Order: sequence, then structure tokens, then C-alpha cells
Amino acid sequence: MNDFTRLLVTEWRRLQLPFKGETFVIAVSGGADSVALALALDELRARKKLENRFVLAHFNHQLRGAESRKDEEFVEQFAEKYGFELVAGKGGIKKNENLEQAARRARYAFLTEAAENLRARGVLTAHTLNDQAETFLINLIRGSGLEGLGAMRSIRPLKEEIPAVKEEKAEKTETEILLIRPLLSWAKRDDTENFCRLKETVYRYDSMNEDPAFRRVRVRKVLLPLLRDFNPKIVETLARTAFLLQRDFEALEKLRDEKTLERAADFGPEVPLKYLTDLRASERMNFFRRWLKTLRGDLRGLDAKHFEAIERLVSSRKSGRLVELPNGENIIKSGGKLLFERREFKR
Amino acid sequence: MNDFTRLLVTEWRRLQLPFKGETFVIAVSGGADSVALALALDELRARKKLENRFVLAHFNHQLRGAESRKDEEFVEQFAEKYGFELVAGKGGIKKNENLEQAARRARYAFLTEAAENLRARGVLTAHTLNDQAETFLINLIRGSGLEGLGAMRSIRPLKEEIPAVKEEKAEKTETEILLIRPLLSWAKRDDTENFCRLKETVYRYDSMNEDPAFRRVRVRKVLLPLLRDFNPKIVETLARTAFLLQRDFEALEKLRDEKTLERAADFGPEVPLKYLTDLRASERMNFFRRWLKTLRGDLRGLDAKHFEAIERLVSSRKSGRLVELPNGENIIKSGGKLLFERREFKR
Repeated sequence: MNDFTRLLVTEWRRLQLPFKGETFVIAVSGGADSVALALALDELRARKKLENRFVLAHFNHQLRGAESRKDEEFVEQFAEKYGFELVAGKGGIKKNENLEQAARRARYAFLTEAAENLRARGVLTAHTLNDQAETFLINLIRGSGLEGLGAMRSIRPLKEEIPAVKEEKAEKTETEILLIRPLLSWAKRDDTENFCRLKETVYRYDSMNEDPAFRRVRVRKVLLPLLRDFNPKIVETLARTAFLLQRDFEALEKLRDEKTLERAADFGPEVPLKYLTDLRASERMNFFRRWLKTLRGDLRGLDAKHFEAIERLVSSRKSGRLVELPNGENIIKSGGKLLFERREFKR
Repeated sequence: MNDFTRLLVTEWRRLQLPFKGETFVIAVSGGADSVALALALDELRARKKLENRFVLAHFNHQLRGAESRKDEEFVEQFAEKYGFELVAGKGGIKKNENLEQAARRARYAFLTEAAENLRARGVLTAHTLNDQAETFLINLIRGSGLEGLGAMRSIRPLKEEIPAVKEEKAEKTETEILLIRPLLSWAKRDDTENFCRLKETVYRYDSMNEDPAFRRVRVRKVLLPLLRDFNPKIVETLARTAFLLQRDFEALEKLRDEKTLERAADFGPEVPLKYLTDLRASERMNFFRRWLKTLRGDLRGLDAKHFEAIERLVSSRKSGRLVELPNGENIIKSGGKLLFERREFKR
């Protein structure tokens, strides 16, 4: 097996992805990165290393006229040649939108719909180490903090939702769809181009990848070459830094969450509002759950709408001063504090 | 009062530095940054806002012949004109040393000695927001993690020591000398130059600040101007990022230390060596203190040499398998574990 394919399967294992019986959508633009990913997955499929169903998905943004149409035709022919199913989508951009953001939003909406229709486990995109280094620099220039400097994750839920909503859905529906970037942590752009050459497969060039009107293109074409004069391994260095900072961010979140849970169990029936508003929304939700569990003994009878009502009570000025819980309990906002009390003892 | 002086006094308060009765050493090269710092402190001294003793310290690296001598004479005249005491030092660099690192080491040794002789509370250096942004970029290019990306601290101990040694000293001697950078979080290089002009005071130019053989000079002269095309406030942005990452790093260390202490209290008399070697040295020292305190009830009779012996027992392959503590207790390395036991019960 070729290095590229071998490293892909190693990453597949590291990310704990299923080796058979699941459907995955592969986002394919027609460029070297996504063609290389599809070729490697085809090889693994042929060798029975991966026995999943892989469906290509191509979105035509209709931004480059004939060029866009040729990309679409290229992907159609590619799918036919390698025996991939293909889902195709089309879209346009409204005036006055940020082009990159709007295009990204339309593409992800299409991919999400495709994955839902196919009951897929995940969407695979072909982002590389180079994309990771570029995203890191773009976020750095923009002034991102620790979370943003972590740049892209190799695996995450396709839709990132607020915890309360997630909680509610977890009871009703199937597992969430994943966004997976199986090249992100190890493949360079050179590797994808070389792998296409090795497989004697042509790929498409996107003229927008050369347009200096885009910040990402200037980062790639001007900033990274200059940084390479300081450190020849700058792409690997920046990508590694991003992954290290992801780990630190996650460790910090986890320790903070644990701390919040400890405090929640110790607070008793009165909590200063200031303490609550200083927490992030997701921490606050965990706090409420642990706080009420400690005070009530369990969470029976409570569902997402109760937690959302408590969240509104705390974070909005306008909402009332009381949330009624089942079993004759009240949560009251009063005197800069949130109070838990049992109605039968008070009235 | 001028903005520059006002912001300096605000920072002095934020850093909780004493307003009277203490001695501070001001490191002065003769460049705009250190001259501006000395001028502003002179103004605050004259207005009785700061009633400390300020002593200038100049180190002549003897790297630039006549230019170095002129810098020294300039600082002598400056000190005389403004009525500052002055401590001067001289040094050379050995062949085959990294010039920047060696110069820095010699300068800090001189400043430390000066501060100790004067029984000073701290050494003040005139690093600016620009220096912070440059240090951030140099560390980024080098591949630093979270701690290094925090770049320079506005205040820290002049000597950073391992906890065991610090513990021992704290009992015997006075408070540690601080390294303070009172311009780091707010002043740009333009601000120091403008303040010198406002005070009608000339300053020296260091020809090494123009020499592209130095990585820092290339960062300042080539990389930062290019980044400014992406974000006109890049210096402020990068410096703010460094300070945010400092805060995250400290929060992470603190939460990890707390976690270590919790575990230390829960472990009982047997601890797997693997757990200990995975900790950082400073965490391990805190672990031992809490662990022994929990097992013994207190730390009576133990001093730094006991903790250092336990550290050697854990981290060195060669050292023996036992440390004897007072009160008939042993720490034993055996079977991949560290064991606490009381001799009287065993023999």
C-alpha cells in the first residue's frame, strides 16, 4: 500500500471511525486534495480495508461560469469512472454577502442535507496541513484567542449546538452527524498532488485559489513563503501549534467544567447571579443540572424547556422572576440571587 | 500630566508596586524606550507621585567599539543631568556563543548583581508592545506551545527557580527581586519616541537594531510590515493575544495544580511511579507536600533536602530505593510504585 493510503487508514483508526456498515459523504470540489482523498478511499474500498458506503457530494457555487460547469462535469466523470455514487447541488450568492463566508454556508447546508438524506455517519472534507496553517494565520491576524488559534478540528459534530438543545435531542433521535477531516493532521498539499500523479489522475485547478482579493490566497502566496525563510518547516510548525492549542483549550474547558460542577454541588439553595453570568452558557447549563440534582436528589420530571426557562431567567432582564418546576418547586430570581425553594414549605 | 506618564502610573498601580520607600533599578541602554521610561519616572519622582529610590544601570557589551563607548557616555551624562544614581558594567562575548543569548545572559547577571547590592525591590526594563509582538512572532516561528506564545510577562521573579529551592529560601531570606516591564502592556515604540521628543531629550540609536543578521530585526523590518497589510493594528493584536494566552496558561496551570493536590490527598500510601513522572517537576513537588501532609498529619521535621531526595528517588534511575524521613518513616521505590511506610510498624 502507498504511504498516503496507509497514513489515511492510520488516521481513520486514530479518529475511531467505523470500518464497515456506515455511509460517509465525501465533499469533492475536483481539486487535488479532494480527488486524492476520494482515490485513497476507493483504494481502501477495493482492498476491503474499509467496507463503508462512500458517496461523493459536489456543490456548484456557479461563481465562475464555464469553469464551474467544467468542475461539475469533471466530478461526474470521476464518479462514474471510479464507481462512486454522486450527489450534486447548485447555488448562488446574494449581493452584499462576504463571498467566502456565504459560499461556505451554502456548501455546508448542502452537505448537511445530503448527509441527512443518506443517513450518513459523517461528511469527509479534504482539508490538509496547509489549510490548517493558513486558518491558524488568518485567525491569528484577526485577533482570535485560544479557541480560535486551535483552528480546525480533525473531527467534530457537523452541527455545533447549544447543550440544552443537544440534551433534548439525544433522547429522541439518532447519533449526530460528524464533520471529519482525515487529512488535516498529516497530509500536505504536495502529498495530495503527488498521490494524484501516482494514480495517474488529473484534477481541476480553481482560479479563485490564485485571486489575491482573497485573504486566504494572500496568506498562502505572500505570508507563508516569507515565514518559510525563517523556518523551512513553517506549515508543519503552525499546524502542530494549532493542534497543541486545541488540546490546551479542551483541557482548560474540561477542568473549568469540573470546577463548575464541584461548586454547583456545594452551593446550597442560593446562588449569586454574578457567579452565573460570569460562566459561559454551556457551563451554566451544566451548573444548573448539577445544582438541581444535588438539591432535589435527581433530575426526574425536568426537561430541556425547564433548563431553558432558568437560563432565560438568569440571562434576560425582561423575563419574569420565577420558574415553576414539577414536584412543587420554584426557582426564584431575587435580590441579585437565584433561589431554589419548595412551594409546600413556603405557602 | 502627560498621557505617557499617566499611563505609566496606572500600570504601576495595576502591578501593585510600592509607591514609596523601595529601591528600583532601571535598565537603560540609551535608546528611546529606556530613556522615555527614565524620563517618566523622573517626572513622577519630581511630582512626588513615586517616592522610591531609582538607580540607573547601564551595561556596556563592548560589541560596537566607539559606538558602545558613546552609549555609555550618553547614559552617564543623562544620569547626571537628571540626578539619577548610576551603576555601570562592562562585558564581552566569548566566541561561538549565540550573540543575542549571550549578551542577554551577561546583561541580566549584571542587573541581578546590581539589584542585590542595592537591596532593590525590582529591576525595571523598558520593553514595549512592539517587543511583545516581536517576541510572540519569534516564539511562534520557533514552534513554542502555550507557555512560550504568552511571550514576556509584565512582572515576574527576576530569578525563576525550582519550587523546592524557593521554599527553602523563603524561610531564610527577604522577598525575591522582581523583573518588571511597566511599558510592556500599553506603550508602543512610537509612544516612547514621541515622549522623548516632548521632553526635548535626545536618545541613542543602536546600529544592531538595523542588522538583518538578527532574526528579531527581520521580524520587525520585514514580517511585521507585511502583517500590517492584513491588519493595521497587528502589533496591538499580537501583543493582546500573547497576554490572553498568558492568562489561559496560568489558569490551566492553576487548575492542574489544584487537581494534583486533590489527587495527592486521595492516594493513600502507594502511588504509581508513572503518575508521578507524568507530572511537571513543580507539580510533583506540590504533590509530595500534600501527599506527605495527608499521610503524616503535618510536614514537621521535613525540609527541602527531604523533598529533593524524594524527587531524585522518583526521577533518577540510579538513585537508591529508599529515603529516610524523621520520625521513623520511609519512602520506598518498589515494583513501579512509591510507598510511604512507618519503620516502627515494619521492623
